[in-house]
Amino acid sequence: MPAPSVDRLRNIATQLRIDSVRSTTEAGSGHPTTCLSAADIVAALFFAEMRFDPADPQHPEADRFVLSKGHGAPLLYAAWAAAGAFPREAVMDLRKIGSDLEGHPTPRLPFVDVATGSLGQGLAAGVGIALNARRIGSEYRTYVLVGDGESAEGAVWEAAQIAAFQQLDNLCGITDVNALGQSGGTLFGRDLEALARRWRAFGWHAVAIDGHDIAAILQALAEARAMSGRPTMILARTFKGRGVSLFEGADNWHGKPLKKGADLDRAMAELDAQIVATDDPAPVIPKPARRHDEGPLPDFAAAMPAPAYRKGDAVATREAYGTALVALGAIDARVVALDADVKNSTFSDRFERAHPDRFYQSFIAEQVMVGSAMGLASRGALPFPSSFACFLERASDFIRMAGISNLNIKLAGSHAGVSIGEDGPSQMALEDLAMMRAVPNATVFYPCDAVSAERLTALAASTPGPVYLRMSRPKTPVIYDAGERFEVGGSKTLRAGDADVATVVAAGVTVFEALAAHASLSAEGIGIRVIDAYSIQPIDRDGLIAAARATGLRVVTVEDHYANGGLGDAVSEALGSLGARVHRLAVREIPRSGTPAELLDRYGISARAIIDAVRRLRA
Amino acid sequence: MPAPSVDRLRNIATQLRIDSVRSTTEAGSGHPTTCLSAADIVAALFFAEMRFDPADPQHPEADRFVLSKGHGAPLLYAAWAAAGAFPREAVMDLRKIGSDLEGHPTPRLPFVDVATGSLGQGLAAGVGIALNARRIGSEYRTYVLVGDGESAEGAVWEAAQIAAFQQLDNLCGITDVNALGQSGGTLFGRDLEALARRWRAFGWHAVAIDGHDIAAILQALAEARAMSGRPTMILARTFKGRGVSLFEGADNWHGKPLKKGADLDRAMAELDAQIVATDDPAPVIPKPARRHDEGPLPDFAAAMPAPAYRKGDAVATREAYGTALVALGAIDARVVALDADVKNSTFSDRFERAHPDRFYQSFIAEQVMVGSAMGLASRGALPFPSSFACFLERASDFIRMAGISNLNIKLAGSHAGVSIGEDGPSQMALEDLAMMRAVPNATVFYPCDAVSAERLTALAASTPGPVYLRMSRPKTPVIYDAGERFEVGGSKTLRAGDADVATVVAAGVTVFEALAAHASLSAEGIGIRVIDAYSIQPIDRDGLIAAARATGLRVVTVEDHYANGGLGDAVSEALGSLGARVHRLAVREIPRSGTPAELLDRYGISARAIIDAVRRLRA
Repeated sequence: MPAPSVDRLRNIATQLRIDSVRSTTEAGSGHPTTCLSAADIVAALFFAEMRFDPADPQHPEADRFVLSKGHGAPLLYAAWAAAGAFPREAVMDLRKIGSDLEGHPTPRLPFVDVATGSLGQGLAAGVGIALNARRIGSEYRTYVLVGDGESAEGAVWEAAQIAAFQQLDNLCGITDVNALGQSGGTLFGRDLEALARRWRAFGWHAVAIDGHDIAAILQALAEARAMSGRPTMILARTFKGRGVSLFEGADNWHGKPLKKGADLDRAMAELDAQIVATDDPAPVIPKPARRHDEGPLPDFAAAMPAPAYRKGDAVATREAYGTALVALGAIDARVVALDADVKNSTFSDRFERAHPDRFYQSFIAEQVMVGSAMGLASRGALPFPSSFACFLERASDFIRMAGISNLNIKLAGSHAGVSIGEDGPSQMALEDLAMMRAVPNATVFYPCDAVSAERLTALAASTPGPVYLRMSRPKTPVIYDAGERFEVGGSKTLRAGDADVATVVAAGVTVFEALAAHASLSAEGIGIRVIDAYSIQPIDRDGLIAAARATGLRVVTVEDHYANGGLGDAVSEALGSLGARVHRLAVREIPRSGTPAELLDRYGISARAIIDAVRRLRA
Repeated sequence: MPAPSVDRLRNIATQLRIDSVRSTTEAGSGHPTTCLSAADIVAALFFAEMRFDPADPQHPEADRFVLSKGHGAPLLYAAWAAAGAFPREAVMDLRKIGSDLEGHPTPRLPFVDVATGSLGQGLAAGVGIALNARRIGSEYRTYVLVGDGESAEGAVWEAAQIAAFQQLDNLCGITDVNALGQSGGTLFGRDLEALARRWRAFGWHAVAIDGHDIAAILQALAEARAMSGRPTMILARTFKGRGVSLFEGADNWHGKPLKKGADLDRAMAELDAQIVATDDPAPVIPKPARRHDEGPLPDFAAAMPAPAYRKGDAVATREAYGTALVALGAIDARVVALDADVKNSTFSDRFERAHPDRFYQSFIAEQVMVGSAMGLASRGALPFPSSFACFLERASDFIRMAGISNLNIKLAGSHAGVSIGEDGPSQMALEDLAMMRAVPNATVFYPCDAVSAERLTALAASTPGPVYLRMSRPKTPVIYDAGERFEVGGSKTLRAGDADVATVVAAGVTVFEALAAHASLSAEGIGIRVIDAYSIQPIDRDGLIAAARATGLRVVTVEDHYANGGLGDAVSEALGSLGARVHRLAVREIPRSGTPAELLDRYGISARAIIDAVRRLRA
């Protein structure tokens, strides 16, 4: 195959500029100037560097491209159209409700692996995508186009350090250094050396070039390809709005398209004039050499061995999680685990010992842990990132974007609630259910004992999309038979009688408080129905409605979580149109250090509080 | 005053070690080894470097100390006890429910400015505290003790770059390089040069020392004090567990105290033996030279000029926010604003133009924006950090800790919900209410028009603790008189009749959908009550209960937010024990790009959806 012609690549870049300008003008919104700064880089990447099949963007061995600066979406769409993935004129549907060419890229499009547009996330996803190449033994390379403005995000530097730690020489970043953010200049402006010093200090090979010089771009990409043992960052000096005189160098054009009429006509004329006559052959995109498909995932829930506990054993759910994770990893090699330096608390260290080649240490950097899990999931791995539940909130915005991408990631958070005890509020997850339930396509499980923890971990693996497992620190007694079945949207009725005066809905550690309340009230001849709502989202609406109806529409919810966004909310919504009276027991102030039992009682989620609530509802 | 004696400082360090070991043993939990690695540093800082008054830890001109590695709390408590802030034997109450000496430091203690324990946050707070010194014209210096493990957090590097950008030579970090994290070695181990390269690349002066050599520590601190125009990071090579042979160098001791009995006795004997005989004078802590108190904050809500709008004007709430912010800044110089490169979208650029010396640019780095606001708030400033609401989620864990610290910060998020239109889901905040409502001491306002936006911005300034203002992108018509009053926990009944069949609770952009539904239904002779729930937290419980009772216990909630954690939840809980039927209208799937009107309708929160819901509730 002949070397790609620079003239041809220049013309492609001009075409990408034309399409970026006219599609945003047609849409009446969007970010043309940021497309124009990166058009030469993208033309070189797509038509002289990357190996892929435009007709099969998800080919497992194809090189990957992540547009971290997601507001450059029109350029991405123009490039895939130019490559033949869809008809060029479709770019004019940009941002229309009937088109998947959205304002920022999402995986609704087959050529998008992870949604971008929340800046600073693309490189972490790229780390995961590059790790996946190693996982499947593929030569594919991963390219991430980063904005200089977004390089201020700490998440970029978390990704940088892990890429270097993992020696990802199959990962190449290109920073579009156009020196302008949305509202002003970037931190470093055009000081490429200052940027290069940062990347080098974080262990990368860094090279500075003129980002509008196609030959220089090609040379830098070749240099990156030849690099061994470390990732490469190409720092490309560019001009925002390059090629359109109205835009170029101006700083008040961010996120603004040209108006139809004279402005657009002038820009089109300028861009048309940049097309050079050439007889060089058109570039041919090389396809991936081989294709290895991993096939569908197994039915993990069915394949898992039965839990090896007896009723009454005292085992923390976090420990059962670690045991289940090892078993899942033995069932399928796509199961991987990620940690942020708490593996000995979450028990993911068991997975590391069993499957060391599929365990990724992120150190104390939760954003890259979740971001690289997103990248891994986008390429077919089944990642289980875990940490203390409260520290997953550090990655809240990544989790939001994982929801938008509908990625198959399984988050596990341990040390939920005040029941952790003495470590104090900074270590207690009391808003993690609110965070995860706010992801509309997320499934949320909250086991109370080791059997349900193992079963729900397996069910998480079998349930598509984002899943969250909430785990507790203290040991709790096993209450379920090893053969007990659990399902998405299910619940367990643990106590029920004909004359129950109220339904108590609990989950996790509060199940045991509800059982204790039942025992006390029973002694007085008062019956309550006790439900273990292990599936927080979706919740067992029908089961809850039936229980509420059977108990005089009196319901108490009790959770080791703040009052908002958790179990009480889920139950209230499920019962919304029933007209039930729902009394919510939850933590309603910032807690403090103390023993677990002291804290459960002080914050009103103990058996005593449940008994009081039942009495009040009857009054 | 004579130079402090190194022997005396060594003995103080030994005392701090003794207290850290015995208090954690007494508590039965905690992290003694991380205290021992940093004891020499803390002894030197507290007794030979810092200027403060142990009897008045909040003195506005005192040097500040932030323990970013919050699990070193026992060391912090031992140091303040040694300085005389409280009786030494009180350290034995560590982690007990009746003591404020919690597992990780919180501002329940007068000498703690910001809660720590979620790692990687202290330096961002330190940036804000150092900026505050500049704001009040004080010479006080800010010291932050950072863990080497937590230096993997991206937030640390966001703080690093802003400290350098702001040329904070009054800020000094000390990294306790003990090379051990919780579950294994840190990323860089003992390679101080690798760490120094990072800090230098981020614009800091960096110096590597032996962290157990008191004289070297003092010299490095003096070097930092002499540095002009840039912050200093002292990289201190230490050993986790230093001074106790059972601990030293071992890696399975993180978060574990010694057992009472032989282990503790041996450690105490070893530490006692490290006390050296000396006749040197005891160090005297120098007190701050002057004291300038800023006094109580004014009543901003009362002092604000009336909004200058007429009913029917079309003004975006985010724009009214910008206008109000300028006015607040004119009322009191403690009002400051922070941005993350979207000031021209949030209209905080108006504040920058009016009060440029009190406007802090964080570039695209939301964690340091919120973290430095936390630091500023802890020292008496009244910070308003703002961004797109969805990008505030990047700082979710900082916001959690701001709640734990009960800091007086006023977060403003613009571009809430699908009503932003074409930019697509990555730019839409649809879970921000869930995030903010989960902070139990946070107040949450959601104005629908420019008058309420201005009034609620002023009310935010007057309301103690964390406050969140949710703002919309589109222009909305002004519906309130300029003199209308708004209050924490209030609501406005916009439409009411004697025969209303249901109450529709709306907020923000959906208020106008509810008003349109009212108009349509009125034409058919059906009355609905329309409530603007501008105070989402606390919500107007009494008002909602009265409205529900007056409308047959039929309630519809409608919000431009996901179904979980937002307005519907707040209303459901308020009505929980009433037995009302609550039908919740909210966004229930990942949305896409489209026009605002298309999206409101597609996702079921338009006037049409409200009308349908009212009809269904009546059926």
